[in-house]
Amino acid sequence: MALRQLIRARPLLARPSVLAPRSALIAPRLTASFTSTPKKLDVPPQAYQNPPGVQGTQPTPTGPKVKPSFSKRTGKFFRTTGRVTLVVLLTATGAFLYVTQTQNSPPEQLPTDTKKPTLVVLGSGWGATSFLKQLDTEEFNVVVISPRNYFLFTPLLPSVTVGTLEPRSIIQPTRYITRHKKRKVDVYEAEAQEVDPVKKTVTFQDLSDVRGAAGSVTIPYDYLVYAVGCENQTFGIKGVNEHACFLKELSDADKIRTKLMDCIETAAFRDQPQDEIDRLMHMVVVGGGPTGVEYAGELHDFLIDDLKKWYPEVAERLRITLIEALPNVLPAFSKQLIQYTESTFAENKIDVLTRTMVKDVKESSVVVQDANKQMKEIPYGLLVWATGNTSRQITRDLMSKLSSVQTQRRGLLVDDYLSLLGADGVYAVGDCTATSYAPTAQVASQQGIYLASIFQKLGQKAKYEQQLAELRATNASPEEIEGTIKKLNRAAKLTPFHYSHQGSLAYIGSEKAIADLPLFNGNVASGGGAAMLFWRSAYVSTLYSVRNRTLVLADWAKVKIFGRDVSRE
Amino acid sequence: MALRQLIRARPLLARPSVLAPRSALIAPRLTASFTSTPKKLDVPPQAYQNPPGVQGTQPTPTGPKVKPSFSKRTGKFFRTTGRVTLVVLLTATGAFLYVTQTQNSPPEQLPTDTKKPTLVVLGSGWGATSFLKQLDTEEFNVVVISPRNYFLFTPLLPSVTVGTLEPRSIIQPTRYITRHKKRKVDVYEAEAQEVDPVKKTVTFQDLSDVRGAAGSVTIPYDYLVYAVGCENQTFGIKGVNEHACFLKELSDADKIRTKLMDCIETAAFRDQPQDEIDRLMHMVVVGGGPTGVEYAGELHDFLIDDLKKWYPEVAERLRITLIEALPNVLPAFSKQLIQYTESTFAENKIDVLTRTMVKDVKESSVVVQDANKQMKEIPYGLLVWATGNTSRQITRDLMSKLSSVQTQRRGLLVDDYLSLLGADGVYAVGDCTATSYAPTAQVASQQGIYLASIFQKLGQKAKYEQQLAELRATNASPEEIEGTIKKLNRAAKLTPFHYSHQGSLAYIGSEKAIADLPLFNGNVASGGGAAMLFWRSAYVSTLYSVRNRTLVLADWAKVKIFGRDVSRE
Repeated sequence: MALRQLIRARPLLARPSVLAPRSALIAPRLTASFTSTPKKLDVPPQAYQNPPGVQGTQPTPTGPKVKPSFSKRTGKFFRTTGRVTLVVLLTATGAFLYVTQTQNSPPEQLPTDTKKPTLVVLGSGWGATSFLKQLDTEEFNVVVISPRNYFLFTPLLPSVTVGTLEPRSIIQPTRYITRHKKRKVDVYEAEAQEVDPVKKTVTFQDLSDVRGAAGSVTIPYDYLVYAVGCENQTFGIKGVNEHACFLKELSDADKIRTKLMDCIETAAFRDQPQDEIDRLMHMVVVGGGPTGVEYAGELHDFLIDDLKKWYPEVAERLRITLIEALPNVLPAFSKQLIQYTESTFAENKIDVLTRTMVKDVKESSVVVQDANKQMKEIPYGLLVWATGNTSRQITRDLMSKLSSVQTQRRGLLVDDYLSLLGADGVYAVGDCTATSYAPTAQVASQQGIYLASIFQKLGQKAKYEQQLAELRATNASPEEIEGTIKKLNRAAKLTPFHYSHQGSLAYIGSEKAIADLPLFNGNVASGGGAAMLFWRSAYVSTLYSVRNRTLVLADWAKVKIFGRDVSRE
Repeated sequence: MALRQLIRARPLLARPSVLAPRSALIAPRLTASFTSTPKKLDVPPQAYQNPPGVQGTQPTPTGPKVKPSFSKRTGKFFRTTGRVTLVVLLTATGAFLYVTQTQNSPPEQLPTDTKKPTLVVLGSGWGATSFLKQLDTEEFNVVVISPRNYFLFTPLLPSVTVGTLEPRSIIQPTRYITRHKKRKVDVYEAEAQEVDPVKKTVTFQDLSDVRGAAGSVTIPYDYLVYAVGCENQTFGIKGVNEHACFLKELSDADKIRTKLMDCIETAAFRDQPQDEIDRLMHMVVVGGGPTGVEYAGELHDFLIDDLKKWYPEVAERLRITLIEALPNVLPAFSKQLIQYTESTFAENKIDVLTRTMVKDVKESSVVVQDANKQMKEIPYGLLVWATGNTSRQITRDLMSKLSSVQTQRRGLLVDDYLSLLGADGVYAVGDCTATSYAPTAQVASQQGIYLASIFQKLGQKAKYEQQLAELRATNASPEEIEGTIKKLNRAAKLTPFHYSHQGSLAYIGSEKAIADLPLFNGNVASGGGAAMLFWRSAYVSTLYSVRNRTLVLADWAKVKIFGRDVSRE
């Protein structure tokens, strides 16, 4: 009897407990779906009771065969559901606590071994972090250098700008990864200043507010993983650095959130002139890529869900304008999803100005040239600049040192094994490279994982080479030597990097997302509430730790229950 | 049968659901308790089944009277517990969602009525917020002016400095209160610049980063509630403003958290000299009041719980020094609690330097004169200044305008009804006043509540006066007029403010707190793990909203499960 109850409970048990608040609290507005695979139905309980090929023994009822009364049936329902709830709760809590306690108890580590090669990793973004996560550190002394001591889950950054997510929910200290490695990893919060590919050294410096006697340090490397990313592309347009907010780092999102609330408070100030209210409540986004689109969507949600409640006197004055130089937003998505996004934006009263070029950014207005080549000056309260990336200074310096082979201004050139052209022992991943792939988190992450497998083999190779030298020194049998050579050859055999596109996702506001997914050599494009649930699931499962997953899910629940916090911190 | 099960579940049901995670996750180390009241035992279930005076009908068992087997008893246990779990979960979730949805759905409000008097409130701290929370706004046009658009729960601020609590968990937007009032309340994020008690006007200015055309505005008031608080007391010591961190505003706590992590990262930097590591890892706290003591305790917890795990190379070098000019810390607490705190600090290796005066604060060292009048220079990485309060500029200006009666440099003088001496229609509460009470949140909060009752009566009085005028104009019967006069007299009768001390609490680290509670005309002093639980319960129940309570409890659970975040944001 108890078994049958448990079998019936299978669909419930299969669902991880951390997902419970989400599924319970989100009432998605399933609005549009262009293509969808037929929903797989759960196998009915009978199928479990009598699986094919197994002799099912029907449990014999012990009581008299009377149809139970309503109250008895209700009682039974409650008993069963109660028992299932209890079992699910206990199991899930136990599993959750076990995983989190393991994560939160880093072990003793092997000390630095001077006989092993030094592997320096520059960066703590997608490329560097996925590399570190996969890396077996036993055969290397690893040094990580990054101005940020944490990994930032960039795809969810637009959600932080309006308080849908809290900043610390989408970051994870790099040490949460490195402290769990077999061998000790040195992590320095510092900015790499120079790479010397000839002497094989890296120079880095502590540029934070608190500095010690040790300032600039140069260390040698045997291997270098170069994953410094990019900086914001301003196209040399005047005033961007001074007056615009970027949306790349966590501090950018914090700044936008503060400035947004500041604009709203100032608009609500006593005796504020009408045109000044219109200016302050005008939020301009430059750049129609996923970042810009998601930010516009989040802003719209904030207006509808929160601003109207707490600032009714100015909420209706909020306007959102998205400026894009190309003929449409989201050039990487399918045509129907672009149309869907543009029509959703039109419904949400988000103005989209395509074929519009920004010419000048002033303190409280932006000068643009519109599709008809007319110049216009648009007053704004907050301007977010999300137009793309350009190489960092250190990358440009490195290119000029290797100018004979590094001929691409866009970024570093690497071979099929992500090895930097012209430099020995240097590998480059992510946005700082110039490859045929888009500069996305997905690419950088896959490159990092691939590179970890390369280093796994490099480690093995070094180990077998040493074994071979020892065998030869001790005059071992030719068979033994032959066997080691075979292993060595296997370890030396590398396969080139291959990128597998998992699809593109973007949130566009009012609980709708768009998803472009490769499927059976074709493409499935979907937009709406179902895509939003997919977007959420995909991001939550991509988050690197149970901690981040829990925090993000808790934030989503928090916003559903309490709304977004409108304090200007 | 079901009824009996529910009755047995009473103690569980009586516990609010939001408390569940805490009680489940905190394993308090109950260490010391000087005095404790005997624990009240729950009335046994029998007493509920047969309450005195009620004829109890014993439920007749329907099955055969056989002693159930072990597995059956286990089954029954599971069934019962499961059912209770389910009922508790459903009830608690329902109640919780009802309350939060009500809070999150502000109603339509009455518009501003030019015939009603204008009540201006300066501030959004303890005094102003408890006043606003209690105030009936129907008879007034209320204007709130404060440079912060939120209320900050200051007693929990030290927990934010190391990440035990997240900043936004202990703040609440002022509009979350004012938007639920009967009549519309204007809330301006601005700094009051001047009060003119003769013309009865307030001048305020938007001093935030984003400013509109409307800058400085002067408005008239009929009533003014002056609750601007204080600023940090530096005693004119050189370098405090430049080099020390304060612990008064939320931004102070954020700054300390960033700087703390920065010190640790810089200490862990490559080739950092040994004496520089010692300096960077030396955290100095000036001021032995509750704020300084709690901060030192939180720092110690951070060291033990988190730093040792993630920064093992420098964690052991962290030293905490507390500097106090008086002969002991926590002068407001009983002797035994002071001793208990000092011995706990000694165990936790927190150095306490009493009778020590700070003479000069330099960029990386502090000059002090110790108990033997010797001058010493102490190198530090982070210095937190928590020595007390002094009047703000606007308060000093107001005093000088009323210099004939405002003779106390310490703060504003008020009468027994919190009415400002020398000014008509002005009331003052909280830290900006000079009363016989300590400048605490508790006093300010009680003053705010008291003042709301005064305004309740002022509103009634105005209403009855108007009624009386109307009655006289319409030649009403003498009885009617007499009745209204009686009501008017009742409304005009005021009782003076009386402060009722609820006790003093402080957290001192390693899951221990101290509590000084007035009881039966005596005092109960308690320190240790039980006091810590009391400290937590008291603060959670004092938090103004279900939202804040939930967030704080979630943060405590989060830290228990995942530890504190060591990212330097």
